[in-house]
Amino acid sequence: MSKTLVFGHKNPDTDTITSAIVYAYLKKQLGEDVEAVSLGTPNSETKYALDYFGVTAPRVVETVANEVSSVILVDHNERQQSVADIDQVQVTEVIDHHRIANFETSDPVYYRAEPVGCTATILHKLFKEHAVDIPKEIAGLMLSAIISDSLLYQSPTCTDQDIAAAQELAKIAEVDAEVYGLAMLKAGADLSDKTIDELLSLDAKTFDMGKYQVEIAQVNTVDPAEVLANQSEIEATINQTIATRNLDLFVFVITDILSNDSIILALGEKVDAVHPAFGVNLTNNRAELKGVVSRKKQIVPALTEALS
Amino acid sequence: MSKTLVFGHKNPDTDTITSAIVYAYLKKQLGEDVEAVSLGTPNSETKYALDYFGVTAPRVVETVANEVSSVILVDHNERQQSVADIDQVQVTEVIDHHRIANFETSDPVYYRAEPVGCTATILHKLFKEHAVDIPKEIAGLMLSAIISDSLLYQSPTCTDQDIAAAQELAKIAEVDAEVYGLAMLKAGADLSDKTIDELLSLDAKTFDMGKYQVEIAQVNTVDPAEVLANQSEIEATINQTIATRNLDLFVFVITDILSNDSIILALGEKVDAVHPAFGVNLTNNRAELKGVVSRKKQIVPALTEALS
Repeated sequence: MSKTLVFGHKNPDTDTITSAIVYAYLKKQLGEDVEAVSLGTPNSETKYALDYFGVTAPRVVETVANEVSSVILVDHNERQQSVADIDQVQVTEVIDHHRIANFETSDPVYYRAEPVGCTATILHKLFKEHAVDIPKEIAGLMLSAIISDSLLYQSPTCTDQDIAAAQELAKIAEVDAEVYGLAMLKAGADLSDKTIDELLSLDAKTFDMGKYQVEIAQVNTVDPAEVLANQSEIEATINQTIATRNLDLFVFVITDILSNDSIILALGEKVDAVHPAFGVNLTNNRAELKGVVSRKKQIVPALTEALS
Repeated sequence: MSKTLVFGHKNPDTDTITSAIVYAYLKKQLGEDVEAVSLGTPNSETKYALDYFGVTAPRVVETVANEVSSVILVDHNERQQSVADIDQVQVTEVIDHHRIANFETSDPVYYRAEPVGCTATILHKLFKEHAVDIPKEIAGLMLSAIISDSLLYQSPTCTDQDIAAAQELAKIAEVDAEVYGLAMLKAGADLSDKTIDELLSLDAKTFDMGKYQVEIAQVNTVDPAEVLANQSEIEATINQTIATRNLDLFVFVITDILSNDSIILALGEKVDAVHPAFGVNLTNNRAELKGVVSRKKQIVPALTEALS
């Protein structure tokens, strides 16, 4: 059997990078020839986790069809969030926890999606189903992914299954989940050295909603005011992106990881969708979304409905 | 929590009907309020299985949004193979073993697809994962589904996992799989009392292939000549269906369950796709496909590629 590449989405976050590493590890234990790669370099939070557990970051690829004919997707399924030449390879497996859209195969596939907070929580089940032992550093990476995606269990996407998995994994990883988790989140929330381009692409995803294309970029911070100090320059960059990529709406979500609220900055022709979606009005292109931290559960479905 | 309906595809076969019953049983054991329904009445093969194990056929529904807001799909995912008002309800789960296409959700979903021969094989795993005991009649239904979808393990879709599951299930069901299986297949292969309309809709599915719409109807028989005795009337009905439903291609697959070969009868504007797909020429609109028994694995991918 020829080699298969495993990777997560563009603008990789901690769940996407670690899930590729973790699932590749599991598949190798099952005797398969797989390699974890990534579609971008790890962000500061992910770097913290990789360094802490002494794991090397995956090789970054731009395309895959030049080296393999089959791939495994983790933590995503939508074509526009995947590698550029995804249409030229066969997707043999998907392990994911997002909505399913813009995804199609011509052959039967192994598809494992569950409405849990994190891909790592599903991977943790797969280790059990295959009765494969979890080494300390692999447990640490899965724990990091759960803490990252759930903002230390605060996100509404977080389920009892995620918390139970995190507790088991923390024991194997030999860390205090709360102490380690807050340090990791703070490492990721330090945006002081980021350019505006970096802020807007750190964790950005594109969605087809009805007939519109919507970009939603999110940053975690302990100081939203600091991020918004440069609002006019941020807006200029967003407007440029909208023009270049023909977007209908760009929503920049600044999430306060201490208060678990978000401020959104929305621009684009379909900016009117914000009011029906969230019941708030934009002032100076901004609005506060109280208790909103999850793009997947609190932002994408509301905007999708408003734009359909 | 309000009730959820579980159902398989239109023109139901044994795997689709029994999977709805079996998964509804499992979910009820897990404390959920679910009901198995079906999008059509059981065929003769399925009736044989239900009667043998003393299980009542599910209630037939035309629409679902009038009674529930959420549904679980088994043995299919493609919108055009599902209930008419599928777009008006939320799909919360899918258990399937087919390609994924024309399927989209706005929220995360539980999606469990594996490239095995039968949905029942995946359901068998789920009983084990949830540590729920399998009663005799539920085992019998899962066994029937595996025998049906694999033509008693002869189909190329059949995997070692399907055979292993069937062996375990035959023990619980207290039947000899070969003896019971052949009797069940023969009950389904008796087409003598079928009208032409019934033959063409018994196990018919619609596929979007590239920009074309293709209908593939399949019957199992021990006497293909008997089915084709009425070829000119069959062709008249097919041509009518093509006109009414604006189809680009209609392929009627007559599978000999004793020799494991098929004869296809193909009509429609895109009939030229048959040659590149299967390397055979049509004579009198017919061609023999040696060793071809699986629509999913041997017919759909080949035609999809030829039409893309």
